[in-house]
Amino acid sequence: MTRVAILGGTGYTALELIRILLRHPQVQITAVTSRSETGHVGEVHPSLYGRLDLGLENLSPAQLKERADVVFGCLPHVASMEIVPPLLEAGLKVVDLSADYRLDDAAVYEKWYGHAHSDTGRLKSTVYGLPELFADQIPGQQLIANPGCYTSTSILALAPLLAGKLIEPTGIIIDAKSGVSGAGRSPKLNTLFSEANESLTAYSVGSHRHTPEIEQVLSTASGQKVEVIFTPHLIPMDRGIFATIYATPTKPVDQKTLIESIRSFYAGKKFIRVTDQIPNTKSVSGTNYCDITARVVRGKVLVLAVLDNLIKGASGVAVQNFNLMCGFPEETGLIA
Amino acid sequence: MTRVAILGGTGYTALELIRILLRHPQVQITAVTSRSETGHVGEVHPSLYGRLDLGLENLSPAQLKERADVVFGCLPHVASMEIVPPLLEAGLKVVDLSADYRLDDAAVYEKWYGHAHSDTGRLKSTVYGLPELFADQIPGQQLIANPGCYTSTSILALAPLLAGKLIEPTGIIIDAKSGVSGAGRSPKLNTLFSEANESLTAYSVGSHRHTPEIEQVLSTASGQKVEVIFTPHLIPMDRGIFATIYATPTKPVDQKTLIESIRSFYAGKKFIRVTDQIPNTKSVSGTNYCDITARVVRGKVLVLAVLDNLIKGASGVAVQNFNLMCGFPEETGLIA
Amino acid sequence: MTRVAILGGTGYTALELIRILLRHPQVQITAVTSRSETGHVGEVHPSLYGRLDLGLENLSPAQLKERADVVFGCLPHVASMEIVPPLLEAGLKVVDLSADYRLDDAAVYEKWYGHAHSDTGRLKSTVYGLPELFADQIPGQQLIANPGCYTSTSILALAPLLAGKLIEPTGIIIDAKSGVSGAGRSPKLNTLFSEANESLTAYSVGSHRHTPEIEQVLSTASGQKVEVIFTPHLIPMDRGIFATIYATPTKPVDQKTLIESIRSFYAGKKFIRVTDQIPNTKSVSGTNYCDITARVVRGKVLVLAVLDNLIKGASGVAVQNFNLMCGFPEETGLIA
Amino acid sequence: MTRVAILGGTGYTALELIRILLRHPQVQITAVTSRSETGHVGEVHPSLYGRLDLGLENLSPAQLKERADVVFGCLPHVASMEIVPPLLEAGLKVVDLSADYRLDDAAVYEKWYGHAHSDTGRLKSTVYGLPELFADQIPGQQLIANPGCYTSTSILALAPLLAGKLIEPTGIIIDAKSGVSGAGRSPKLNTLFSEANESLTAYSVGSHRHTPEIEQVLSTASGQKVEVIFTPHLIPMDRGIFATIYATPTKPVDQKTLIESIRSFYAGKKFIRVTDQIPNTKSVSGTNYCDITARVVRGKVLVLAVLDNLIKGASGVAVQNFNLMCGFPEETGLIA
Repeated sequence: MTRVAILGGTGYTALELIRILLRHPQVQITAVTSRSETGHVGEVHPSLYGRLDLGLENLSPAQLKERADVVFGCLPHVASMEIVPPLLEAGLKVVDLSADYRLDDAAVYEKWYGHAHSDTGRLKSTVYGLPELFADQIPGQQLIANPGCYTSTSILALAPLLAGKLIEPTGIIIDAKSGVSGAGRSPKLNTLFSEANESLTAYSVGSHRHTPEIEQVLSTASGQKVEVIFTPHLIPMDRGIFATIYATPTKPVDQKTLIESIRSFYAGKKFIRVTDQIPNTKSVSGTNYCDITARVVRGKVLVLAVLDNLIKGASGVAVQNFNLMCGFPEETGLIA
Repeated sequence: MTRVAILGGTGYTALELIRILLRHPQVQITAVTSRSETGHVGEVHPSLYGRLDLGLENLSPAQLKERADVVFGCLPHVASMEIVPPLLEAGLKVVDLSADYRLDDAAVYEKWYGHAHSDTGRLKSTVYGLPELFADQIPGQQLIANPGCYTSTSILALAPLLAGKLIEPTGIIIDAKSGVSGAGRSPKLNTLFSEANESLTAYSVGSHRHTPEIEQVLSTASGQKVEVIFTPHLIPMDRGIFATIYATPTKPVDQKTLIESIRSFYAGKKFIRVTDQIPNTKSVSGTNYCDITARVVRGKVLVLAVLDNLIKGASGVAVQNFNLMCGFPEETGLIA
Repeated sequence: MTRVAILGGTGYTALELIRILLRHPQVQITAVTSRSETGHVGEVHPSLYGRLDLGLENLSPAQLKERADVVFGCLPHVASMEIVPPLLEAGLKVVDLSADYRLDDAAVYEKWYGHAHSDTGRLKSTVYGLPELFADQIPGQQLIANPGCYTSTSILALAPLLAGKLIEPTGIIIDAKSGVSGAGRSPKLNTLFSEANESLTAYSVGSHRHTPEIEQVLSTASGQKVEVIFTPHLIPMDRGIFATIYATPTKPVDQKTLIESIRSFYAGKKFIRVTDQIPNTKSVSGTNYCDITARVVRGKVLVLAVLDNLIKGASGVAVQNFNLMCGFPEETGLIA
Repeated sequence: MTRVAILGGTGYTALELIRILLRHPQVQITAVTSRSETGHVGEVHPSLYGRLDLGLENLSPAQLKERADVVFGCLPHVASMEIVPPLLEAGLKVVDLSADYRLDDAAVYEKWYGHAHSDTGRLKSTVYGLPELFADQIPGQQLIANPGCYTSTSILALAPLLAGKLIEPTGIIIDAKSGVSGAGRSPKLNTLFSEANESLTAYSVGSHRHTPEIEQVLSTASGQKVEVIFTPHLIPMDRGIFATIYATPTKPVDQKTLIESIRSFYAGKKFIRVTDQIPNTKSVSGTNYCDITARVVRGKVLVLAVLDNLIKGASGVAVQNFNLMCGFPEETGLIA
């Protein structure tokens, strides 16, 4: 059994991670940490009542090393870059779900996150944990930067067509819609039920932090400079991201060619389902699937992609990364 | 025009009150106060953008007297009992939407609200502003205690059958369900969208503060000691209260007699609709109506009642009280 | 009092129309028709219980002429074009909420609606009832074609910038999101609660019937051929449309210029609120307002607009049209 | 591998059953039937796209016998009693999710379901598949009657206190609240999103068909005649049942005694979690757990219980029954 610790156990990604890991046959969860809360995991997350007999603890890297082989970091950015170096030095493997190790460039990080990076040396070498693109780089890594939820949806939708040079790398519009759980479990006015329910709004228009992440990874993956306009919207539902993407084809193209191109790109990838039908978020809710289709409208290419922001967009892909790091079959624990 | 000020302008009852008063032909809103926030009313409540050109202000009773004839208090309890006496002394009329003047007995107040009452002299004499029961006492009052939302639903449902001695005054079970807006606009974990949506729970079982209010008013209105078991539930919807009430008939009774008795009790009351059908909250949403029906099941009497917690359960009835205090037709501004 | 009949009284636009007209001081509702259902209006729409003492009737044009001065048509397309000519011949004024008289060109109608038009003679001459653009043409008309909900949102958002030549007329992307009430009250699988709730999908991608309507009206209004890619999405909420629109500026432009240009275009229009903030659907829910703002992101122009699909997108604008046709102040009955 | 067929594959219980069985290590799904629809399972249920390569088929009992060892019946009542006898005669094991074999008494069935029973001989001998009460009778059975969702919640909540003679068997009030998925996947007006969302109503007051089922099973289990008043409510959420139950104690009792009594009754039962906290439906959503607690309010006993109506209330318990019938560990496939 691989012993696993979860850092920052009070949020929704941690909860989802615990749910997945509880059915993983090779995992034993040995610690769940919190810097601010104490109490039993089953009190903080009533859905785990009776399922995981651990209290929230504030543990040092040394203590974690005693208890665990692998650590999942569910901390906010900045907090993550402070704890990851000592964890790695203690010899632990780390899947970091924060944004701290996703960007290659410390200046870009500082610009978008408003905070200087304190572990710049690791930025360029840390593998970006999107297994459908980088599966061969993940095995054997000690640290994986787990992708953002909007990011995964956008990259998975666009990577095949960019790789195939079917669409132009600039002028791409990503109109993305997300359920409210993506905003986290800290009480804020705009995510109160009475504010978010029966409402819909855009936010961070032109300034959302997933923008540079999408561009960096797509540029790296396709070998050309990719530029996107990314507009996130808050949708009155718990889970799910729907990305409606508009791109310019490099030459006239039809729907069948687009869909076959995406299907071929993801051949053998168990968690990508390329469909002829328009996908919907409910069909992937609670699963690690990303459903994708494409259309041509008035000469523009539309790519439509969905995933569950807490699973394929966070904790599910984290377990995919963990499986690859540790040599388990990629889908272990993830067929729900 | 009657000049009106609203105290505590950031919450949902204040917002709803402003919406109603903006279509009241005899009202001019002249001030909206806040102790903590500043900024334009249209910034705090975007639905009011361009409709009310006032900023939030922190005003003293003397300043309010300069600006207004009548004050609606949308403050929390305790805050209300501190400001109401100087407002009254300044000669202002007050409709107080807090719980501070609803209970007759200072000891009962202290027990349920955990705070000694500082204006006990006014408790017994303040009229409880449920116009369907006390319309004749409201005109000419300087201070009205506006009822709670669960309370109004429960009292309006039970008062006719208790008055008619059709049901026993004790052993009454009120299983009540409320939309989330009843919990207010302050960010809290349990009213976050991601917590409340797609969930349902009971809360304050056996200890909700509306219990003594229901019992006091029904006891007064029916001339007998009324006792209830009151169980509130949080429902994933914005608005609406549904009360399912179980009572023991004093003698065998049928549905027709019950409904006719309620209908007769409320003859001429514009905002009570006694229906043969089972009511639903959506049909009263955004309105000042309370819909009521009754059933007999296995010898027990069931009364089913609905209203919009922010309107008939708060700001709508507040305007009914205002109209009666000021001599306007009771329904002015309230037919939406 | 103007006597008003409503054709097709069982749907949501009819319900909303009745609610608005009940508070219109110059209107008496004298008939509500249905071809398929009978029963009291208050049974079909419980929210109207006790508020409108009419049963659903199946009335001929001659009978309608006896009872009404103005008719609101809430019938499906095709049904509308069959009844409108005899109503007009009987001398009635008609506000038609269907799509049948919105398009100028019978061939375009037949292509998108799959049905030959039987009243082609009236297509070119019927005024399109979007009062913010065509207010001067509406007074005195006998027939007004009431706009579609997506259409109004899109046109109101784009008309000012097209008129001012600030954006290119082609390559416009309208990514639109709508609450479920827009799909009507007929039971269908995809609008069942258990299907639509907690889900999000796109539909009619590249083929939605509001596309030619948007293009025709914007082309007419701006004097240039406008082309749009229109992608509607179904959102798990009752009401509201949010349009996120992407356009190419004709020359470099900033946010302030865009917003001022829209504000100036709608100067004096009571129901358009041009905001600096990003709008949200909840702030216009239940109202006749359309809120609009604009942004510049990476050289593209974004216009963000919201309205309530059943009010400003259907029954509210219908009453605006009615007011203008009949010489009442445009906002009568519409300040909610 | 045990070969499994699912009858009536288009509904929500069938979908949920397939999801569970896909992760059951001893099961191969070999057929999914429908009398009315054809097409691939992944088209009817997009969430199953790529996960189960079967089309919907209309198969005879003989054909089913060729393909399967065990059949799950997800058919409506009446349809079930027509197909079950030939399935049993063909030698198949059957878990019937319909109501057809739950009641012992054909006359009671006919009274509540309005249809004479055509297989009365099997009524008394069919085991009621609530494993927490009847686990010892299930192994080796050829036919199991799977319980209803409201029924399971109510029985699981009440059985311990009735068995312990802590509460009176009559005068029990079950105020139950259910998500909309319980109403099935057939389009109906009252379960349309635009009707059910943002609304709450009671239905089948005093006449819901789960009433005799609750009374029969509790009477059998506790050896005394149990009578309940059962009031179901429709809640705007996908899943979950919350039962708030009011009973009269046989003698004064406290909360601790009640909770310990329930805990002791369910000792060793993996899917019952007896909690000190008030349960909520979200914490059991997507799981096979039933969470229960108890309170004493003004001398009355309150039992509060929750489960997921599609899992512990339907398809999860069906797999528990299947596991027990076939000799697999009870929880196989059910830890999600």
